[in-house]
Amino acid sequence: MKLLILGGDGYLGWPTAMYFSRLGHDIAVADNYLRRTLSLEHDVEPLFPVPNLAERISIWKKISGLEITSYIGDLQDWSFVEHIFQCFRPDVIIHYAEQPSAPFSMLNRQTASLTLANNLTVTANLIFAVKAFTPEAHIIKLGTMGEYGTPNIDIEEGWITFEHKGRKDTFLYPRQGGSLYHTTKVMDTDLLWFYVRTWGLQVTDLMQGPVYGLHTRESDLDSRLLPFFNYDELFGTVLNRFIVQAVAGYPLTVYGKGGQTRGYLNIKDTLQCVRLAVDNPVARGTLRILNQFTETFSVNELAERVKKAARNFDLNVEIKSINNPRKEAEDHYYNPSRSGFKKLGLKPHLLTEDELNRMLETVLNYRSGISEHKMFRGYTWD
Amino acid sequence: MKLLILGGDGYLGWPTAMYFSRLGHDIAVADNYLRRTLSLEHDVEPLFPVPNLAERISIWKKISGLEITSYIGDLQDWSFVEHIFQCFRPDVIIHYAEQPSAPFSMLNRQTASLTLANNLTVTANLIFAVKAFTPEAHIIKLGTMGEYGTPNIDIEEGWITFEHKGRKDTFLYPRQGGSLYHTTKVMDTDLLWFYVRTWGLQVTDLMQGPVYGLHTRESDLDSRLLPFFNYDELFGTVLNRFIVQAVAGYPLTVYGKGGQTRGYLNIKDTLQCVRLAVDNPVARGTLRILNQFTETFSVNELAERVKKAARNFDLNVEIKSINNPRKEAEDHYYNPSRSGFKKLGLKPHLLTEDELNRMLETVLNYRSGISEHKMFRGYTWD
Repeated sequence: MKLLILGGDGYLGWPTAMYFSRLGHDIAVADNYLRRTLSLEHDVEPLFPVPNLAERISIWKKISGLEITSYIGDLQDWSFVEHIFQCFRPDVIIHYAEQPSAPFSMLNRQTASLTLANNLTVTANLIFAVKAFTPEAHIIKLGTMGEYGTPNIDIEEGWITFEHKGRKDTFLYPRQGGSLYHTTKVMDTDLLWFYVRTWGLQVTDLMQGPVYGLHTRESDLDSRLLPFFNYDELFGTVLNRFIVQAVAGYPLTVYGKGGQTRGYLNIKDTLQCVRLAVDNPVARGTLRILNQFTETFSVNELAERVKKAARNFDLNVEIKSINNPRKEAEDHYYNPSRSGFKKLGLKPHLLTEDELNRMLETVLNYRSGISEHKMFRGYTWD
Repeated sequence: MKLLILGGDGYLGWPTAMYFSRLGHDIAVADNYLRRTLSLEHDVEPLFPVPNLAERISIWKKISGLEITSYIGDLQDWSFVEHIFQCFRPDVIIHYAEQPSAPFSMLNRQTASLTLANNLTVTANLIFAVKAFTPEAHIIKLGTMGEYGTPNIDIEEGWITFEHKGRKDTFLYPRQGGSLYHTTKVMDTDLLWFYVRTWGLQVTDLMQGPVYGLHTRESDLDSRLLPFFNYDELFGTVLNRFIVQAVAGYPLTVYGKGGQTRGYLNIKDTLQCVRLAVDNPVARGTLRILNQFTETFSVNELAERVKKAARNFDLNVEIKSINNPRKEAEDHYYNPSRSGFKKLGLKPHLLTEDELNRMLETVLNYRSGISEHKMFRGYTWD
């Protein structure tokens, strides 16, 4: 199959490209290095440098013998999108090409505008390109569990049937995100759902929780194939940050009470979930929504697990509650369903002490790359 | 009070400017003539030409002795928005500055992109300007009843409490629009609600039904003060179109079965509703949603009423069902609440035969301006 990966240079994009390449698919990646540019501009580069896409592709070719095509450019630019779809007519498009950071989207007007314009315009251009060039293609879009927020009722899988005054109807599950970034993902879902029901597109929208880890079967072949690993508060996800903080002897930065509970998953399971979505396409006119996580943890639980595993490396970890820079409930009901991927046969890689050990070990190897000033700056939601 | 009207040249914007000017408020209007440009480009100019904003303001000054300030420019441009807020620090902003046509948003990729970018960027810039310059200002935003779609349960006023598996929570009422335009209004609400709860803004989001009419107390003072009156399928609302079709001897274009039911209101009641919102501000951190319509009609009922009133002018009207160019339910449950404005004291101007006579009379005066080729082209949702 021909798979086009939008945002193919990113934390998840590049591991996804190698994964499907190894499975025998014909892969193209598109990226404008936005994530790299933003990391640089905000002085929050990843733990270790990673080669550019052309270099990654050439390393991958030497190791695997497999080709990956790349398109470097901005997917907000229609002529670029049109060019890609004219050259490479994908059967499946995996859409990661969004500004992915909640705190970045809250920094100031400029970062908010960038997030809003980038995320919405790229999703819209993708929809128009599929309609124009590959109307049968399956769009697999990365959303976020954060679209649901933290409601006081069980979180179902994308849809919910409500009864009201003796009548019933089924709706998109009510959504309210905790940042502008999350809100753009809510809007993406609105946009996709509109065009699914109007033009009969086939879309899978993956409500993914925070991802951790950096090891995949492919990245294990050569350390130059590792993904970005950010440990700052803008682009680092919470568990990845805690691991680096533990190694650096920096107190784990728990926001507020630490009762914030989310559904997490290993980067290996991102790949597995996306493959399950690819292998099980949806019918025309269908928006399938799948909750993509394997276990729920509170921030306090994550911190405790990291602290415990760190002892194996004689690291003495302090956990420190700091003023919550975000606006979020710190203690709340949280019961999300994850029956969709269970039915599709997902075999989760759980957050075991072995897994934490492996991450700690790798980060210890790169400890010279840690800059303490990148760790935490206290950017707030105001 | 200082009132800033975004989109102050539009079908509703200009009547609103005069109305609040006469009530003694200090008024500024901002517009980039987008609606005029699009009408021109698509060969669907209104029934009669209207003076530009500078001319309208000068006519208004001669008649009323009152000043209105104008800012001509694009509200997508932050420096323009910043300039307005620095010069004119509004107490209230009335936000009409959106591409307002559902069929226009569905014409092609360019019109869709324009609608998405314009509507979202202007709303975001407004939010950022209020936060930066006038955090106590009341934002009054024109949404649409179309945000709700046509659900099988009663439409409440913006919010709804659902019970699910023995637990309860209150959510934004589930929304799904019938066009890209409607979808951008859904997204606007998402955006406003996010910043209301995060930054404590005070917002009234008006879910308005289709508006008809052109007469207001102010426009009655001089025919040069009349609003745009479009009768084409892009920018003309349904009742206005039917009136012109009746006068032109063109069969009333009922889409499909004609059972599509919506909540309508007279342009006079748009003004009254907006005044009620201005006079009853909301507390910090509140998103108030009000359903803004006075009566519900099916398209068939509207057509029949126009046909009946037209007889008073010896106009013999034919009603013709045509293939529905839209994707919408033509026969559906529809029971929207309008208790909010009732409580605030709205006195509706209902769609009486007198009202229809008045509209027919005015359109008969301008009948020489009717171009039959502007009436209907069959633009579809595909």
